[in-house]
Amino acid sequence: MSPERSEDAWVAAVARRFPRSPRVRVGIGHDTATVAFDGRDVVLKIDTVIDGVDLRLAACGPVLAGRKALAVPVSDLAASGAVPRAAVVSAVLPRDVEFPTFDGLAEGLAAMAAEVGCDVVGGDTSVADGPLVLSVAVVGEPGPHGLVTRGGARAGMTISTTGPLGGSIVGRHLTFRPRLSEAQALLAHHVPAAMMDLSDGIAADLPRLCAASGVGAYVQAAALPVHPDVTRLADGRPAWEHALSDGEDFELLLAHAPLAADVVAALARAGVTLHAVGRTTDRAGVLELEVDGAVRPWPRGGYDHLRRAGG
Amino acid sequence: MSPERSEDAWVAAVARRFPRSPRVRVGIGHDTATVAFDGRDVVLKIDTVIDGVDLRLAACGPVLAGRKALAVPVSDLAASGAVPRAAVVSAVLPRDVEFPTFDGLAEGLAAMAAEVGCDVVGGDTSVADGPLVLSVAVVGEPGPHGLVTRGGARAGMTISTTGPLGGSIVGRHLTFRPRLSEAQALLAHHVPAAMMDLSDGIAADLPRLCAASGVGAYVQAAALPVHPDVTRLADGRPAWEHALSDGEDFELLLAHAPLAADVVAALARAGVTLHAVGRTTDRAGVLELEVDGAVRPWPRGGYDHLRRAGG
Repeated sequence: MSPERSEDAWVAAVARRFPRSPRVRVGIGHDTATVAFDGRDVVLKIDTVIDGVDLRLAACGPVLAGRKALAVPVSDLAASGAVPRAAVVSAVLPRDVEFPTFDGLAEGLAAMAAEVGCDVVGGDTSVADGPLVLSVAVVGEPGPHGLVTRGGARAGMTISTTGPLGGSIVGRHLTFRPRLSEAQALLAHHVPAAMMDLSDGIAADLPRLCAASGVGAYVQAAALPVHPDVTRLADGRPAWEHALSDGEDFELLLAHAPLAADVVAALARAGVTLHAVGRTTDRAGVLELEVDGAVRPWPRGGYDHLRRAGG
Repeated sequence: MSPERSEDAWVAAVARRFPRSPRVRVGIGHDTATVAFDGRDVVLKIDTVIDGVDLRLAACGPVLAGRKALAVPVSDLAASGAVPRAAVVSAVLPRDVEFPTFDGLAEGLAAMAAEVGCDVVGGDTSVADGPLVLSVAVVGEPGPHGLVTRGGARAGMTISTTGPLGGSIVGRHLTFRPRLSEAQALLAHHVPAAMMDLSDGIAADLPRLCAASGVGAYVQAAALPVHPDVTRLADGRPAWEHALSDGEDFELLLAHAPLAADVVAALARAGVTLHAVGRTTDRAGVLELEVDGAVRPWPRGGYDHLRRAGG
């Protein structure tokens, strides 16, 4: 009676164990959780990066590892319309760790914290027989324009991203800037009906947005904005496949009503260019991909820890 | 130029990298951090349990592992006077994990969450070539009697614990109940000048309280309350050594002024019995242990990940 071996299926299967008190405004299944403290919203997210899975410590060094460990959960806060305030860090260190590695992790964490205006206020350090594991939890507040979830899309909306996609493995997955200002500009103009960050690629993430919103989606491969990094991969696969499935772009993915020209202009002045990739449909949970005029079933894409592990 | 190979020394050495904005009321070096959100205090803590370090998954099973993963950071909130509200969980699973293990972890987390009135609101799941790693971050609010830190002890105070110590490895380290109600009862009667939870044993934890408060301590071995579990270890070492150094008791350690009889009676009605183990002194950072009338230097005790690793 076990569910399908995938992260989403396992998480969905255990979510029933966690009842939601009235305090919980947004719970499991969104980029961040929101909990009311005496009526005041606190936004919360935890994410983990692991040597050999999310980065290669020997290649990138500890500073970029520390930077990424904080940038990943901050990206989720950004996509929710929240502003990060404080972070706590759990570091599980390999047994042969030396101080300069630990200090480099701290340097990278501090650099990202300064960049996004967030305090690192505590942590926990362990040593184990395994790879480096950095878990970072970030708490924040709603930004001035309020919060947004994955759940607000309706049929007939435009699906867009804030930037080109694919090939982040070349290095961008370590150096990306969380889209805090872009999210705030979009929310200031009431653009996103639903929003999330692209951590696992549109192929994996758009189904999550559609499921949360109860809509379907129709995406055109030719419309996918391809990042120049894709050309550096030169592996013979079509560029749109990379844009669809590579993951770790950390751009925003959103559903929105058609944009008036003055909004487009205002967003451009704020440094935000939206790339339309498709539209939402009323066929809940049905995702379609158009390639060269033919509609294909949605690819099973993006990185899934559990499928890779054994499924 | 690297610091001594110990967790405290490494953390102290990197703490300078993290400047504190005015928002941070309590930062690195206490049981929990406190951050002001528009004047309202939010309390935050992250802790991690690892298979093979903090528990043995094959022996204890996933339910107790999930339970402990949440109980450990909740214990820190308790010791700060805070009330837990919401938790997020990062699970790094071994590659051969099967669903019942994942579900058991969720069951244990949910049981502890229900016990302490905290919602589990989100998480992150990974698979890696290593042991099970569960990192849990908990956010909470100050309880009705306000917060307390490790930093408020003054010379001449009594040092007490809320329960007997030692031998938790027999099983109590998995089944302990965070001392939330005890902490609230103590604070309701304005007892603790400084408080923390005993995660690493008095031998390791009391120096931390003394350092944060700028005091010394004089502890009598004969006064240490010994848990019955110590007799089950039967390893020939004096019982007081176990009480001093075993760790993972998760009782509260506090410094306080002498108690009036009516306060002692009121605490007893609330189920709290304090065990006095010594007193604070004005010799900052100097800790002494009296055994059979002779004063010994303070033992280097408690579990330290980094010393065990290579130092």
